[in-house]
Amino acid sequence: MRAVDIIMNKRAGKELSREEIRFLIGGYVAGEIPDYQVSAWAMAVFFQGMSPAETAALTEVMLRSGAVIDLSGVPGPLVDKHSTGGVGDKTSLIIAPLVAALGIRDPMMSGRALGHTGGTLDKLEAVPGYRTGLSPEEFKNILIRDGFAMTGQTKDIVPADRLLYALRDVTGAVESIPLITASILSKKAAEGAEALVLDVKYGSGAFMKNPADAERLARSLVDTGSAMGKKIIALLTDMDEPLGRMVGNFLEVEECYDCLDGKGGGGSADLMEVSLELAARMLILGGRAKDAGAARAQCEETLATGKPRELFLANIKSQGGNPEEFLKMKGTYRSSHRGEITAGEEGYISRIDAWKTGHAGVELGVGRNRTEDPVSPTAGIEFLKKSGDRVRKGEPLMIVWGKDAASLEAALPGLAAAVEYSPDPPAKRNLILKEIGGL
Amino acid sequence: MRAVDIIMNKRAGKELSREEIRFLIGGYVAGEIPDYQVSAWAMAVFFQGMSPAETAALTEVMLRSGAVIDLSGVPGPLVDKHSTGGVGDKTSLIIAPLVAALGIRDPMMSGRALGHTGGTLDKLEAVPGYRTGLSPEEFKNILIRDGFAMTGQTKDIVPADRLLYALRDVTGAVESIPLITASILSKKAAEGAEALVLDVKYGSGAFMKNPADAERLARSLVDTGSAMGKKIIALLTDMDEPLGRMVGNFLEVEECYDCLDGKGGGGSADLMEVSLELAARMLILGGRAKDAGAARAQCEETLATGKPRELFLANIKSQGGNPEEFLKMKGTYRSSHRGEITAGEEGYISRIDAWKTGHAGVELGVGRNRTEDPVSPTAGIEFLKKSGDRVRKGEPLMIVWGKDAASLEAALPGLAAAVEYSPDPPAKRNLILKEIGGL
Repeated sequence: MRAVDIIMNKRAGKELSREEIRFLIGGYVAGEIPDYQVSAWAMAVFFQGMSPAETAALTEVMLRSGAVIDLSGVPGPLVDKHSTGGVGDKTSLIIAPLVAALGIRDPMMSGRALGHTGGTLDKLEAVPGYRTGLSPEEFKNILIRDGFAMTGQTKDIVPADRLLYALRDVTGAVESIPLITASILSKKAAEGAEALVLDVKYGSGAFMKNPADAERLARSLVDTGSAMGKKIIALLTDMDEPLGRMVGNFLEVEECYDCLDGKGGGGSADLMEVSLELAARMLILGGRAKDAGAARAQCEETLATGKPRELFLANIKSQGGNPEEFLKMKGTYRSSHRGEITAGEEGYISRIDAWKTGHAGVELGVGRNRTEDPVSPTAGIEFLKKSGDRVRKGEPLMIVWGKDAASLEAALPGLAAAVEYSPDPPAKRNLILKEIGGL
Repeated sequence: MRAVDIIMNKRAGKELSREEIRFLIGGYVAGEIPDYQVSAWAMAVFFQGMSPAETAALTEVMLRSGAVIDLSGVPGPLVDKHSTGGVGDKTSLIIAPLVAALGIRDPMMSGRALGHTGGTLDKLEAVPGYRTGLSPEEFKNILIRDGFAMTGQTKDIVPADRLLYALRDVTGAVESIPLITASILSKKAAEGAEALVLDVKYGSGAFMKNPADAERLARSLVDTGSAMGKKIIALLTDMDEPLGRMVGNFLEVEECYDCLDGKGGGGSADLMEVSLELAARMLILGGRAKDAGAARAQCEETLATGKPRELFLANIKSQGGNPEEFLKMKGTYRSSHRGEITAGEEGYISRIDAWKTGHAGVELGVGRNRTEDPVSPTAGIEFLKKSGDRVRKGEPLMIVWGKDAASLEAALPGLAAAVEYSPDPPAKRNLILKEIGGL
């Protein structure tokens, strides 16, 4: 078998065999096949695509390139949720304690902020003491005790994905549906969940800018995951505007705690809507509910008991934080470099651009452009108004905190430009566009 | 400027600017841009193609990556011929002395055998003492004295092509019309010819298997060469069957000498036909004839004078060989490992597959699979019959010489399988399919 023949087969649009994929990717991880052959192959995949069988084979080959978390002995159902990423996208911190309170165990392995999108690990680490680098043993113990645990991907999990992603990133081969599918599913399969709910986002703040591309990705994820024997549902959700009323690291943890108040989540209606719909699908996959309506009713009842909020605080304690300290910091743990965005026009806010907000967030210190950059726990944005709200000219729309004076200064114009106005009330946003897959 | 953006622009089908191409290829040659980015770009070019302006820019950037032969001071017209390669394709050794006898100067820079195709340098070096590694000064002096000179591409000529070709070869990006165009024309432009006749071959023994692909390549070469200010004509010629009655290194030099007999070239009618048509176009581009008919008549008259044969022998002497010795070796300089192919059927030979013949040639030692392998001067094939000939079962069709007994043994079945038969006379082959370009 020769790598060049595998590349030419893919170039010609042929379906690669599992053996060919194993030869290429296995050889790459072993250092036997050079990166220039793998980058040419990835570009050929970009143009020719992959069949569901090929994508499943690639996912499995990648999965087996490293260690797999062993969750045998953890009482199930083990159900996880994965989002393709967005701005203010913090549903994990609401969903995990919520479904845990309903008997689902969520082994959550998350990522970090990159570019305009936020990262769950960075948010959690904004809570002083909180540790996201759990050992497998700690991860398993916390998962059993609290019903969920939050950790990062260790170096020995799917090394093929780290190598391949870094190569695709510098060779213009990121936007390939089968390669994205294999990247997501290999990591999710390695963490040991039996079932998976996917939040596939579309819009300016999402990886997929339009619903059609997001749907193609969702179908590929569902088809490939199903072919691998996973129970899987994808929801297509809107990421054209930041989700919720906070963008920031500590700010978003705080918002999630507030959302678990059992009274509807305060001013974060959009965030609650998406979180509840995702949680409902987790209950369905976990066998706790028959349909989305019943599942959602269960979620709302459970929120009212206060149990999810208790589990949220218990998790902070389990992972090294101090819940009492967290509650004291709430509402005050902010950078001292504070600014405001006020309404530039009279009328209705028709849209707050998620992409522009996300990039302003990077300026402020919420996110990062390079994986090695640090983030600030206390930088961020609080939205006082969102789309659909009527505003007077000069009325405050956002409070903004920068990691320092210069970053605050640099971010404000972008944030002001992210707000769009209309004289009439805008059409209501449809947060959940479509459901794909199921039992 | 970033390489990844250039890759993504090409991936999206955009036309790259001259600056982008210079950044990428110049950076690659300078060791600043890694091969994995260039291989991804080459694969994107395979799928998206390049405009004539882009191809011309790439050719010029490649040309300027190294030294250019300075032929100023050499009296013109300077006209060269280039073939895309084939089996038994030895027209250079007939054409160069022929057009030289008519006042054209041919600065010929040739290549070596690779895969099933032969190489002019390997053939010439089969003549003991013949040197193809001329210094620029020697090349120029011989060109002035004999009217033509035969040399190899030195390391400092178009280094970008050597790097890029080696990378394309192992990453499945060889068969791209614009990349082939830039590879051919950058080398031909570097050797200093003002005008160029291209022999673009199609058929089993050619790089392009069908006439449509060959025509696409020919048009790309003519368009790009014209855009660079070269006078250029391409002929599409048949390479479905080996050209002439010899395949081998010394054997082919010998056949060319025989073809210059001024009496029609003996049993090599197909070889003479293609050589004369190509030579005629060189006369037209060199301003020595108005049309192909007149040019061809001049060629035939000149052959009858014996002058081309004298120049052929003079060149052997100029480049280190011994013409008297060559004439003594003729007809006897053969490997001692000799075999025969006899007719397996009664009837007409309808085809001798060039690809199968070329691969048998590699077995015999005529060619090579890897650039570092040696070739044998005395291995080869002499065809006693060719397509259209009537044969009796058991009648000898080919004499075969292998570099050793094992290689002879290994090659014979493939050669026998290369011969196809029909009960009726086959249709006459059309050797010259089309002419593209012109003055």
